[in-house]
This record gives sequence, structure tokens and C-alpha cells, in this order.
Amino acid sequence: MVEIERKYLVRNTSYREEAISQKRIVQGFLNTDPNRTVRVRIKGDEGFLTVKGISNASGTTRFEWETGIKVEEAEALLQLCEPSVIDKIRYEIPNGKYLFEVDEFHGANKGLTIAEIELGNEKDIFERPDWLGEEVTGDIRYYNSQLSKNPFTEW
Amino acid sequence: MVEIERKYLVRNTSYREEAISQKRIVQGFLNTDPNRTVRVRIKGDEGFLTVKGISNASGTTRFEWETGIKVEEAEALLQLCEPSVIDKIRYEIPNGKYLFEVDEFHGANKGLTIAEIELGNEKDIFERPDWLGEEVTGDIRYYNSQLSKNPFTEW
Repeated sequence: MVEIERKYLVRNTSYREEAISQKRIVQGFLNTDPNRTVRVRIKGDEGFLTVKGISNASGTTRFEWETGIKVEEAEALLQLCEPSVIDKIRYEIPNGKYLFEVDEFHGANKGLTIAEIELGNEKDIFERPDWLGEEVTGDIRYYNSQLSKNPFTEW
Repeated sequence: MVEIERKYLVRNTSYREEAISQKRIVQGFLNTDPNRTVRVRIKGDEGFLTVKGISNASGTTRFEWETGIKVEEAEALLQLCEPSVIDKIRYEIPNGKYLFEVDEFHGANKGLTIAEIELGNEKDIFERPDWLGEEVTGDIRYYNSQLSKNPFTEW
């Protein structure tokens, strides 16, 4: 139940050529407090409810708990969420035994793209693709919960 | 997904004699905002995650969504909750086709007992037992989410 994740900006859109999937994600937050974020997500035709804790000092590990829920339930819960909803397209790009998830944000976060890789171990090494940019792991501004309150276009 | 509920104080403990069950409930909140409370509960040997919206003007109907979760998951999620945990004993008391749930609070809410009845319809009539006291339906101070932040012993 602990997530080990590193987060990066991107230099260009060439990851699209390597993508094995592309899905729309709409999500809102029942709590945006970084100590206990509660996220409602619709991803393609699936619903999810996810609870995350605060990250450790290096920003790479974070408690995460998730359960699948019906899309209709997720839609009802989205009505209760804090006002700003996140709308993004997620591309999945294989990288050796790992997978990059690249999120292109729309709406109030238009212009922002974030790449994430989930690792088995905090010290795992992976190959950096050409399109990978600056690391922003642990920078709370890039948490989706924060982007819903303080969106990229207002930075 | 809408809860119709009336809430009362009690005059004495004679409801205990009519109780058909008695269970300890420990619960915390991932969000205490009355617009979107998120509750983690352990009731006997079961775990639950519950989301509630704000009530209507009369205070009787309120959006509610709940899913069962493993007790170990509930325990992990309780660690993430806001500091004050609610600890109470719940008695179930049949009343015609309805059921009263009477909660005797412990810890920081010691001395407080609340009876709740869930109705099929906002205008449903039920027999008032002798032990039933003043109605507090819709009074936000008696929401468990508020009792965890602003407990009864500090009123």
C-alpha cells in the first residue's frame, strides 16, 4: 500500500509515438489535503476511489489505497467533489519492465504535461527517454489535488 | 443513495433493555467538511468507507454512499484520518418496521447519547418510545464529523 513514484516534466510530445494506450481521465477530490487526499476518478469506462497520504521526505514513497467502483457511483460522487475537476488524457509508454504514464492536462491546467513512473524500489534505475524533462518528484504543486485548486494556467 | 434520517437525544438508558444488538464502533474522518464527509469505520469485525453530502433544508435527507472494506484496510486508513477518532457503543432497537440506532459515545464525547431512525419516506410516522428525547435532526453539531473536531465534553 506504499507507492514509489517519480515525476517529470516532458520536453516534447514524441512519447505519443511510443504509447500503447490513450485514455481520458476525469477526476475530482473529496479532500485535497495532502495528508489525506481522497480522489474520485473515471478512467475510460471504469470508476475508482483512491486515498493517498503524505509523501516521505524524498517525495518518492506515499501511502495509497484504491478500490474500484461503478462509473455511475463515481459520477454521483464527482457531484460532491470540490469545485475544480481535472480532465486529462493519459498515455501509457512502456520502459523496460516499467511503464511511464504521461498525462496531458486540459481545462484550467492546459499546457501542463507530467510523466510518472512507478518503481518497485526507491533506488531502481530506469532508462531516461529523450522526451523526459526536469524531475518534479515531491513538488506538491504538481499533485493533482493541488492542480485542482491552484491550476497551472494561474501559476 | 439518499439517506432519510431523524436524530434525537435520549432521556434515560431504558433503550438498553429493548436492544437486539450491541457493537463497538471506531471511526475517523478523511474529511469532516459537511459538504463531503469521508468516514472510515470499524464496526465489530467489518470495515466501511462512507461518503456523505450536505443535508437538505429540513436536515432529514442527505446523499450517502458506502462500500465495505477489509478491517485491515480500515485500520490503515484510520491512521490517515484527522486526529480525533470517535469511539462509541451502538445499540439496535426495533421500532415497528423501523430500527433505532442508539450511540453511546466514549472518549472526548463521553456523556452524549444519540438515537437515529432511518425512514423510507420523509413523512413516515413512527411510535416515539418513552426514552426518546429532544429532536436534533439537522443540527450540524451532532454530526459525527463535527463531534470528532468539536467534542461534546468541550461544548
